[in-house]
Amino acid sequence: MNFQSASRAQLEAAEAELAQQYQAHQSSGLSLDLTRGKPSTEQVELSSSLDGILAGNYISEEGVDLRNYGGLDGIPGMKRLFAETFSIDVSRILIGGNSSLTLMYQSALFALQFGLGGEGSAWNQESGEVKFICPVPGYDRHFSVCEHLGIKMIPVAMDENGPLMDEVESLIKADPMIKGIWCVPRFSNPTGCVYSDEVVDRIAALAGIAGNNFRVFWDNAYAVHILDDEAKELADVFVSAKKHGTEDSVLIFGSTSKVTFAGAGVAFMAASSSNLAAFKRHLGFSSIGPDKLNQQRHINLLKDATGFKAHMTQHAAILKPRFDIVEKYLIEGLAGSGIASWLKPQGGYFVSFDSEPGLAKQIVAMAADAGVKLTPAGATFPYGHDPKDANIRLAPSYPSLEEIEQAMAIFVVCVKLATVRKMLNA
Amino acid sequence: MNFQSASRAQLEAAEAELAQQYQAHQSSGLSLDLTRGKPSTEQVELSSSLDGILAGNYISEEGVDLRNYGGLDGIPGMKRLFAETFSIDVSRILIGGNSSLTLMYQSALFALQFGLGGEGSAWNQESGEVKFICPVPGYDRHFSVCEHLGIKMIPVAMDENGPLMDEVESLIKADPMIKGIWCVPRFSNPTGCVYSDEVVDRIAALAGIAGNNFRVFWDNAYAVHILDDEAKELADVFVSAKKHGTEDSVLIFGSTSKVTFAGAGVAFMAASSSNLAAFKRHLGFSSIGPDKLNQQRHINLLKDATGFKAHMTQHAAILKPRFDIVEKYLIEGLAGSGIASWLKPQGGYFVSFDSEPGLAKQIVAMAADAGVKLTPAGATFPYGHDPKDANIRLAPSYPSLEEIEQAMAIFVVCVKLATVRKMLNA
Repeated sequence: MNFQSASRAQLEAAEAELAQQYQAHQSSGLSLDLTRGKPSTEQVELSSSLDGILAGNYISEEGVDLRNYGGLDGIPGMKRLFAETFSIDVSRILIGGNSSLTLMYQSALFALQFGLGGEGSAWNQESGEVKFICPVPGYDRHFSVCEHLGIKMIPVAMDENGPLMDEVESLIKADPMIKGIWCVPRFSNPTGCVYSDEVVDRIAALAGIAGNNFRVFWDNAYAVHILDDEAKELADVFVSAKKHGTEDSVLIFGSTSKVTFAGAGVAFMAASSSNLAAFKRHLGFSSIGPDKLNQQRHINLLKDATGFKAHMTQHAAILKPRFDIVEKYLIEGLAGSGIASWLKPQGGYFVSFDSEPGLAKQIVAMAADAGVKLTPAGATFPYGHDPKDANIRLAPSYPSLEEIEQAMAIFVVCVKLATVRKMLNA
Repeated sequence: MNFQSASRAQLEAAEAELAQQYQAHQSSGLSLDLTRGKPSTEQVELSSSLDGILAGNYISEEGVDLRNYGGLDGIPGMKRLFAETFSIDVSRILIGGNSSLTLMYQSALFALQFGLGGEGSAWNQESGEVKFICPVPGYDRHFSVCEHLGIKMIPVAMDENGPLMDEVESLIKADPMIKGIWCVPRFSNPTGCVYSDEVVDRIAALAGIAGNNFRVFWDNAYAVHILDDEAKELADVFVSAKKHGTEDSVLIFGSTSKVTFAGAGVAFMAASSSNLAAFKRHLGFSSIGPDKLNQQRHINLLKDATGFKAHMTQHAAILKPRFDIVEKYLIEGLAGSGIASWLKPQGGYFVSFDSEPGLAKQIVAMAADAGVKLTPAGATFPYGHDPKDANIRLAPSYPSLEEIEQAMAIFVVCVKLATVRKMLNA
């Protein structure tokens, strides 16, 4: 039924039926959780040979004793593994600890306070409030890095090709204190979109407008997390940056958090030699270098780009049925209803759902009352504020297939009931 | 021979003989390294069962899957292990990643920029230059944290009981912008001294003079690194702080870097609940929590305080002969010479040596020319500046016994030759 063209009587009948369904769900006492972009137990088990995989060999290929001090930016084998898998020149790779979030925070902190471009390049030495462009909906932990560091966030909408670049460019032209942009360019969190070649190229060119201290935070967190063999490829941002003479503006981030063990993986960043030199100089004051043993374990497990990709195929086999259930319930329950929209992702960890404006918070609250925890509405926007109150992020990776079925059945009822009631009260 | 009371002729004869010895060393083409406080290969091998020690069990005692996200401040078992071993209440422990240096840097950063004592407590919100007391000689990486964060360092001398507290107290009374003090209270780096009970108590009382935003950075890095069963115990700083009502001023740090694997160990900090809450709030913006698997591996290896101490006894058995060689060469070559002084440490990783004023740089350079690398003179002082140019840090943990013998023989010749030449030219 298309709710937008339904008569009042039809809406009233629907409300009564949906209210009954909702009550039935409420009284069933379920406790389900679709909040977290967290791998399932089946997924982490794919890497359970990691502990013990060194088999007593603690010496790297280069003859370094991995049990002792040294190596601020990682061991060569781990750099090679990321370089091959992400098609990045190995000289640009720096290995971090267990979290790419930490590398992103440090990059923003160092750029803000000390500058990544040499003497006088610190953002906070310029007069005015430092600002970042935040494509929305986006990742709440990117936004909270900005909040913590006192960087003002300017939201810009996205479509299926990425951020709306006309708007991004005109904002940057008008304000020299815009110093960065957050990007999750492949299987964006949460929309799942893959930035088009044109968008990648225009983002790479931004420093030409914004100046030398501008940085693109290219969080390629889901680059290898493919659900569909036909998934759109992402253009190489460094190739565009080279063309535009803006290579110093690009900082790429990634990790194995959702490849091996979440919280015990290996992170990396990739950047120009001048950015890496500045980053390492500052990093050296606070770090003795990341755990080299865990790097060697990852080398032994994943081996090379081919091994890495084969490992990700196993993840996809576990994840795809979960995303298929979400899609099935959304189509069966809401296709043609005129009250909901969503994108079917070809990779990543989320489905981004939009309700009618003004209903996301209410839907999330109703789902919670019926035992389904969802990511708080607004979390995908800077300062937790979704101006339309419409976006809801669904994260089906962690629960079992049966739990996702139950949760999605409830979610669809909540969406419809909240919408019908709003229409009846309008 | 006592050089101070020798005749010119005796000195000239000594110079000729020493010069010959030095030349012989120079031409022997050795390449030895006494620079680094780094465990030897024998030491790291004590922990070589770590990889694989989980034996496929990735679930913690509390039923948490250690392969997945969660746990910003560490797992309970690791907190208990540190709490027992360091006699600290478990509620005060926070587990870090592989580096206590990182926890110290973060503590200083958060205190400086955001405050650890709630609204308005940030050091950089007060007017004036933020300063730290730095007992000297001390640890260069403490000093570089201050340098990086723009904190001015005020050196204060130490004796065998710790920092000279009359001076520390009068500096703090005179300047409210002194916000911290670096301490390595047991087996200090490099002097090896253990702070006396009185010094511990007076340090714990400093916040009573300095105010609520003052923090004692209590880097108890070598607390369990005992070389001598009779080693002096360290008083409990939290007990004194409680008595003085200054518990919020104490931040304790430590790690297993020199217990298990250097660079792949587990760090901790201990602090009052209000400090921990503030620290965690800020930490949460940049961290997904430390590697839980590595914590569980350490729990399995070390088990409890008894296991921890037994493990350290094995380290001592490896380290003690190395320190004995250093002591033997210093006594045989320089006791009664009137031109050198040093302390015999009962624990830790260093021997702190003082030459006649104005000679440390030259001795280090001469040793380097004869194939013995020493820690750069001055490194044990803020800004790398030893005003007397007298202190040299010897680090005998890493080289083999034979290498230490060779290095110490050369070192003693360099000290004597440099001093005699200075006396002859005076």
